[in-house]
Amino acid sequence: MYEDLCKPLNVEKNIRLYTGTGNPALAQRIANVLHLELSGLMITKFANGEIYARFEETVRGCEVFFVQSVAGKNVNDLLMETLIVADAATRASAASFTAVIPHYGYARQDRKAASREPITARLVANLLEAAGVDRVITLDLHSNQIQGFFDIPVTHLTALYQFGDYFKAKNFDLNNTVVVSPDMGRAKVAKKLSDYLGCEVAIAHKSRPKHNAAEVMGIIGNIKGKTCIVNDDMIDTGGTLVGSIHKLKEMGAGDIYISATHGIFSKQAIQLLEDAPIEECVVTDSIPCAVANTEGSKIKQISVAKELADAIFAVYANFSVSGLAGGNSEM
Amino acid sequence: MYEDLCKPLNVEKNIRLYTGTGNPALAQRIANVLHLELSGLMITKFANGEIYARFEETVRGCEVFFVQSVAGKNVNDLLMETLIVADAATRASAASFTAVIPHYGYARQDRKAASREPITARLVANLLEAAGVDRVITLDLHSNQIQGFFDIPVTHLTALYQFGDYFKAKNFDLNNTVVVSPDMGRAKVAKKLSDYLGCEVAIAHKSRPKHNAAEVMGIIGNIKGKTCIVNDDMIDTGGTLVGSIHKLKEMGAGDIYISATHGIFSKQAIQLLEDAPIEECVVTDSIPCAVANTEGSKIKQISVAKELADAIFAVYANFSVSGLAGGNSEM
Amino acid sequence: MYEDLCKPLNVEKNIRLYTGTGNPALAQRIANVLHLELSGLMITKFANGEIYARFEETVRGCEVFFVQSVAGKNVNDLLMETLIVADAATRASAASFTAVIPHYGYARQDRKAASREPITARLVANLLEAAGVDRVITLDLHSNQIQGFFDIPVTHLTALYQFGDYFKAKNFDLNNTVVVSPDMGRAKVAKKLSDYLGCEVAIAHKSRPKHNAAEVMGIIGNIKGKTCIVNDDMIDTGGTLVGSIHKLKEMGAGDIYISATHGIFSKQAIQLLEDAPIEECVVTDSIPCAVANTEGSKIKQISVAKELADAIFAVYANFSVSGLAGGNSEM
Amino acid sequence: MYEDLCKPLNVEKNIRLYTGTGNPALAQRIANVLHLELSGLMITKFANGEIYARFEETVRGCEVFFVQSVAGKNVNDLLMETLIVADAATRASAASFTAVIPHYGYARQDRKAASREPITARLVANLLEAAGVDRVITLDLHSNQIQGFFDIPVTHLTALYQFGDYFKAKNFDLNNTVVVSPDMGRAKVAKKLSDYLGCEVAIAHKSRPKHNAAEVMGIIGNIKGKTCIVNDDMIDTGGTLVGSIHKLKEMGAGDIYISATHGIFSKQAIQLLEDAPIEECVVTDSIPCAVANTEGSKIKQISVAKELADAIFAVYANFSVSGLAGGNSEM
Amino acid sequence: MYEDLCKPLNVEKNIRLYTGTGNPALAQRIANVLHLELSGLMITKFANGEIYARFEETVRGCEVFFVQSVAGKNVNDLLMETLIVADAATRASAASFTAVIPHYGYARQDRKAASREPITARLVANLLEAAGVDRVITLDLHSNQIQGFFDIPVTHLTALYQFGDYFKAKNFDLNNTVVVSPDMGRAKVAKKLSDYLGCEVAIAHKSRPKHNAAEVMGIIGNIKGKTCIVNDDMIDTGGTLVGSIHKLKEMGAGDIYISATHGIFSKQAIQLLEDAPIEECVVTDSIPCAVANTEGSKIKQISVAKELADAIFAVYANFSVSGLAGGNSEM
Amino acid sequence: MYEDLCKPLNVEKNIRLYTGTGNPALAQRIANVLHLELSGLMITKFANGEIYARFEETVRGCEVFFVQSVAGKNVNDLLMETLIVADAATRASAASFTAVIPHYGYARQDRKAASREPITARLVANLLEAAGVDRVITLDLHSNQIQGFFDIPVTHLTALYQFGDYFKAKNFDLNNTVVVSPDMGRAKVAKKLSDYLGCEVAIAHKSRPKHNAAEVMGIIGNIKGKTCIVNDDMIDTGGTLVGSIHKLKEMGAGDIYISATHGIFSKQAIQLLEDAPIEECVVTDSIPCAVANTEGSKIKQISVAKELADAIFAVYANFSVSGLAGGNSEM
Repeated sequence: MYEDLCKPLNVEKNIRLYTGTGNPALAQRIANVLHLELSGLMITKFANGEIYARFEETVRGCEVFFVQSVAGKNVNDLLMETLIVADAATRASAASFTAVIPHYGYARQDRKAASREPITARLVANLLEAAGVDRVITLDLHSNQIQGFFDIPVTHLTALYQFGDYFKAKNFDLNNTVVVSPDMGRAKVAKKLSDYLGCEVAIAHKSRPKHNAAEVMGIIGNIKGKTCIVNDDMIDTGGTLVGSIHKLKEMGAGDIYISATHGIFSKQAIQLLEDAPIEECVVTDSIPCAVANTEGSKIKQISVAKELADAIFAVYANFSVSGLAGGNSEM
Repeated sequence: MYEDLCKPLNVEKNIRLYTGTGNPALAQRIANVLHLELSGLMITKFANGEIYARFEETVRGCEVFFVQSVAGKNVNDLLMETLIVADAATRASAASFTAVIPHYGYARQDRKAASREPITARLVANLLEAAGVDRVITLDLHSNQIQGFFDIPVTHLTALYQFGDYFKAKNFDLNNTVVVSPDMGRAKVAKKLSDYLGCEVAIAHKSRPKHNAAEVMGIIGNIKGKTCIVNDDMIDTGGTLVGSIHKLKEMGAGDIYISATHGIFSKQAIQLLEDAPIEECVVTDSIPCAVANTEGSKIKQISVAKELADAIFAVYANFSVSGLAGGNSEM
Repeated sequence: MYEDLCKPLNVEKNIRLYTGTGNPALAQRIANVLHLELSGLMITKFANGEIYARFEETVRGCEVFFVQSVAGKNVNDLLMETLIVADAATRASAASFTAVIPHYGYARQDRKAASREPITARLVANLLEAAGVDRVITLDLHSNQIQGFFDIPVTHLTALYQFGDYFKAKNFDLNNTVVVSPDMGRAKVAKKLSDYLGCEVAIAHKSRPKHNAAEVMGIIGNIKGKTCIVNDDMIDTGGTLVGSIHKLKEMGAGDIYISATHGIFSKQAIQLLEDAPIEECVVTDSIPCAVANTEGSKIKQISVAKELADAIFAVYANFSVSGLAGGNSEM
Repeated sequence: MYEDLCKPLNVEKNIRLYTGTGNPALAQRIANVLHLELSGLMITKFANGEIYARFEETVRGCEVFFVQSVAGKNVNDLLMETLIVADAATRASAASFTAVIPHYGYARQDRKAASREPITARLVANLLEAAGVDRVITLDLHSNQIQGFFDIPVTHLTALYQFGDYFKAKNFDLNNTVVVSPDMGRAKVAKKLSDYLGCEVAIAHKSRPKHNAAEVMGIIGNIKGKTCIVNDDMIDTGGTLVGSIHKLKEMGAGDIYISATHGIFSKQAIQLLEDAPIEECVVTDSIPCAVANTEGSKIKQISVAKELADAIFAVYANFSVSGLAGGNSEM
Repeated sequence: MYEDLCKPLNVEKNIRLYTGTGNPALAQRIANVLHLELSGLMITKFANGEIYARFEETVRGCEVFFVQSVAGKNVNDLLMETLIVADAATRASAASFTAVIPHYGYARQDRKAASREPITARLVANLLEAAGVDRVITLDLHSNQIQGFFDIPVTHLTALYQFGDYFKAKNFDLNNTVVVSPDMGRAKVAKKLSDYLGCEVAIAHKSRPKHNAAEVMGIIGNIKGKTCIVNDDMIDTGGTLVGSIHKLKEMGAGDIYISATHGIFSKQAIQLLEDAPIEECVVTDSIPCAVANTEGSKIKQISVAKELADAIFAVYANFSVSGLAGGNSEM
Repeated sequence: MYEDLCKPLNVEKNIRLYTGTGNPALAQRIANVLHLELSGLMITKFANGEIYARFEETVRGCEVFFVQSVAGKNVNDLLMETLIVADAATRASAASFTAVIPHYGYARQDRKAASREPITARLVANLLEAAGVDRVITLDLHSNQIQGFFDIPVTHLTALYQFGDYFKAKNFDLNNTVVVSPDMGRAKVAKKLSDYLGCEVAIAHKSRPKHNAAEVMGIIGNIKGKTCIVNDDMIDTGGTLVGSIHKLKEMGAGDIYISATHGIFSKQAIQLLEDAPIEECVVTDSIPCAVANTEGSKIKQISVAKELADAIFAVYANFSVSGLAGGNSEM
């Protein structure tokens, strides 16, 4: 076995794809696209709440990709799971560890909106780097600036054009269609989607006419009688969103479609949406959703597996990501 | 206000004591010892599982102590809470942030027992340092070496002598008393407790007589008819421990007392212990336990608030910790 | 002199305020507010373009504040100057070095809008930390998320309410006044200013009706006949902005006022603005501007010296910044 | 020569094996197993005590393995030699530098047993990382937790099973054989060896019956008339160990064999052992020992060259270490 | 495309050569030597002085070499350009980034000559590392110790032997030739050049005979009637140098030739040199110089493109640099 | 005790002065100057060569100064001792740790003079920082650039003016006195000393007239019949130096005095010097020397205790070092 050590050894790369417990269905879809098996990784939660992980086979010298959505009630468990698996990979001499994080939890805490707050989205970046993560692949971050929270390379994808294609396929009358931003902060993205579709844009906003008076919603732009495509980056409890939907209807909106990359659906969000005066609520599979695409449900789910698989392949085989369908040119 | 800036300003230290959600009762007890109020710190969990924290008043230039047990079903939440609060303190220009962690979760994952495992106890140390923690005060770590996982100062206390005093007060016949280590790994600490009490020591161990045969427990040392004080660092599900208790009884043990610093009590641990042939199971309040010290319960709890308060004071006022009652001279 | 070394020495803080070459007039105004002299710091540029700096008196143990706007043709010189001065302070054992950066250059490069771009705003944060900067005080960053590019504390102030007060003092008819965001991305801040003033908001946006056709500006909201307050974070060449002003006029806008925190005024910006159909263009003194407030000029400058001085004092004397007038609660 | 630079270049790995001055004989044995030559590395000690090192041929792009036992009177010289060679390798653009450290000096200082002590085993880990070491291969660390002192991958081997095989080959009557732990802290490893051999275990311990009285040794378990295999991780001066041997004899022990991975043999250790009432003292060649295996000596030495060579190969060729004979599954 | 991901992928290296704006002509010469094209890298300076850079094609997995002289009026721009390009390369997942810096700006600020000064040469090293530079190739640093300012590998070349060959080709009468060091600090290098040429050495120095008297130049060694080769590492304003030339002439020097690796030529340096009583002033192309080698000019330029190309190739293909013509054995 | 914790605590500094085993006599002299006692620090070397250290009393919150010369046969022990003590101080929560290193070992390895060498002087700087050292006070480094190997503040003193004063007191005829640099590299310092004394300078140098011929010494400048003051930074084996002394005598030198800051005196250095045709060899007490200042010995020692004490005081009490007698303005 050792006779040939004095000759140079050819270097080879091996890819290993693993899934955390955050979104195994999506990981499987990615594996299918890539014609790969998910490799064996034992992840256990002990009775005392502590997580234990162990790679079932050697990862020495391998390029490890770990698919994990960090979202939902147990968001901290899923984050900790990611950190623990990264630590194990580093100590097991993996060549690199890429965290594929379709939904990046804590993304909304990306600045100090008040004194003495944390910037948890940056903290999470620091934790990932401290645990030995070498690269991140992620999707529709709450703000583009979160890329700059990392010193390691971040591949930032967007599902915006997939939503665009989804709605194009509906063949709406574009003169009678409007993309609606649910608040001022999302105006820029709504504009981008409306440009892609070739229709108008409108922007909802909240005002408090007098001190102590209730907040009222206003709308800038024309929605009367029009098909409205409300676009947001994520749906959490859905309360504010559904409130706005009712307002839009009162203001004369026509059919309403909601699209959002990340369907967190906390609390009663799904029931709220099913009951709301909307046609559809379209999300991606960045976060699992049992009811999506089932008969009678308004929740539609489109998959980002192809986009993520392409990005994984590009990273592994040193291809450019910029030509990919989901390549994010300024979301 | 600004007239005197050209003169030197005297520097003063201010202490601020905060509690996480992990063990507020212990934090209050520590505050009582120190004649301090717990300061205001808002910690919220959003519907989507994400934690948010904010200091209610300025911490600029203050010495911040944050009491948090990292234990129980939501161990990852409590760890993340600690990291987020530390991040907020750093960004708010606190002079220092000391994490007071009576129970250090993940302490048992302190080495690679198998290939491709993480060393999560080290990972946790790295995460605390990455979040801006300046010092750690903790109690009866699973192994003393965990101190060396940190580059920052660690004050490591022990409850061993409090347990010793607790049992001394029972006035057992020492010739008829034996401290029992539940396994080989804890033999050294059991010896230390037996030396403190002035009695014998015995060590339980597991063997597998033949391949594929069931594991059987053996005991080295004499326990027949003797009062047994079983000492461990923590009780998790209690399954193995209670199994051993039954064996000890079969082997002729007299009264059995259990002592363990950390009462995690996962799953049915408490019921198992109440039903076990023991007199008492004594733990500290490093982890909350509702049933402890209630009438009829075998679970007794002694408080480590005084030890932790002394350590906090020593750190704050630059006193030596080594003279403290709980000062750990080689647990 | 040395007899008393065995007794403890009382610790005192000393403040030192220095100016770079980027904005000495503002530094002097801050010094005036604080009743402090600017301390001696030699900064030279050699014939070969290299910068040399030296503190004229000891800074050992002092709290050093260095006021430097990083803007203008020689933005890289000013940044390098800051790094060199920070290096000198660190090596001279200053207790802390706070960079007071009214205008943070490279702030617009805060995300990857295209593949293979740098994130220079993060790079600048890394460089400041690598040079030994301990804290940053800054004003109206291009995006709030830039705070998260730092691991060190950042005090982020806003001039928004000073602009608000400036316009309130004009006693406009609020029913006939509208705050105009020059693009979708600034809609949120425009809304905040309009709420503060108690008037309406409108949002300009660009569209390209057909592929290859020229971009056209649209406006969401009503500006006809109204006094328009256009608000932006900075004015660079002013080309796009003045283009929009003309469009607003064509669309029927009444009097137009421009307000922007940072007046960079590259190329012909000032001439463009003087010639534009506006009443005033109001900026702060975060960047020097010779023509501002001179007779006949439309460029008005309001000073942020008081806000910066308050923040310096708060950092020095451990007061809270959150109560300050310029305290940024989510710009 | 340069014509083909526009084509991709195939990457190859080259292994280079070097020895320090700490254990060149073992390094040569490892080289023999691997069918490799030791490469040229000049290491000199100047008259003023300073060490100088230089690689004699290029190491650019090579995988460098450096074999160095850090033990003996000049332990600090050997450590410094390792750091200097690592620095030279890094500056010479080696692809990686693996420190193969059969005996890791300072391993016993792995925790704070008293206040104001260093944790030198962690300090050594920090120094190795600071000097540019990428990986460590080592053997029977004083505690398993020392692995967690590193952020870089550590391959931790054990000689326990080699000792087991050595004693199995003696065909002792297992019913009449007992593995003896020399103190409480080693009880767990002694148990593991006894399980491997299929015999009993006993544990020696020290007590101080009264304050100020001399320490006396006790034994838990039955050794009377039995062949005793005393197992420790290292033998330093041997004083305490030989004292215990005499006690065991007094207590009626039969033949006594000592086994310890690391034979440091300080002071008169060898003479003490030769004169002690033992049959053999078996150590590995992790530390050089001139007298071992010479006629008439009780010191026997078994080689760990094969185990270390296997680990080097696994690291170089990206094989799993876990299947290796010396792979440490929880020493 | 994805069918074969389960098979190992052969790793290949790709070289990419880029130029900054500091010395594109030299970069082109290097490219010519290497038979490579300079790859596309857009570098723009905005109207506001900020630099923007973007790689035109993917650099993922490539070995990137960036040629940039950091010298001249805009030295800070050129340094910042280097940092920005390095940041972009890191974020774009380049395999490595080598900064090829023929002239390393700020090299003279390599120590604290007075209190409260920066050590800017070290600061620059820190900035390069902070921006993600992996290796540096440079030429005739002001002091050899600057290599030690880096933790990353530095390839340090010298042009001394090229100058030696240049003068050898002139076939001077060596008995009548002397190498002159312009000051005490350069005496060692002058000696090295004189040894290479086989002639004498002399050293100029400055003295101030009395306090407040003017500084006068002295010379140690014999120059009367001899051809003098004055050697320095760089020529900045040339004032002091030309002053010394006149003194040498007064002292009876024969023909005078100046050689210096780096021709910075600040202010009126070139005119001063053209007018000085010298035969030639020979510099390398480490810094662009328009007038060099033009008819009638005394400024001669020899190219270091071959030396830099060889070093780039050695780094890329893992060859030794020490055998190269320009390999620096103790400048 | 705890009643007043809600009030601010005044911060006080406490100084603690410790000595290592490298130069306790100098440490005591420094303590005498400062009217301080050396505090208790146990430093032991175990039989196995490992060093153990422990502070005897609390250092929590104290400013720790540790005096240690890193020189002599056991230079690595002394360096390791420094690192271990620094680690202990950091873990014991000292406010700061200043290493006072009168002789900085490995200073000559400050650059790569050949390929594949280390830069050990930088490595030592990295090790000191990794062990937690906060500041360094040192004396006459082999090159000024070594200051730049540190990111922490370095106070660099010189003994040059003390030597100057020593020779001034001898009242030599300055017209007949010359300072001699023993080689080209020290020419600059020799010039500085000659300027301070007001006399001439001469420079010795080595040449190899033909390839394979023996090296011969030349001298630039006039020494005939003059009193020569040879100045070097350190004397190691003294072989080359004494060889040069004989040459100077052959060339007609008058009385010869040697001065060197660091008297390492390896091998037979002292005997060589006693036998050499010199009047005196003057060194400082940066390194202990038993024979110095004894009757009949040519070795004279002057103390740098006052200079080091002043620097310690300046650091402790935040005074400027630049006014100190030993303040190094460009050695």
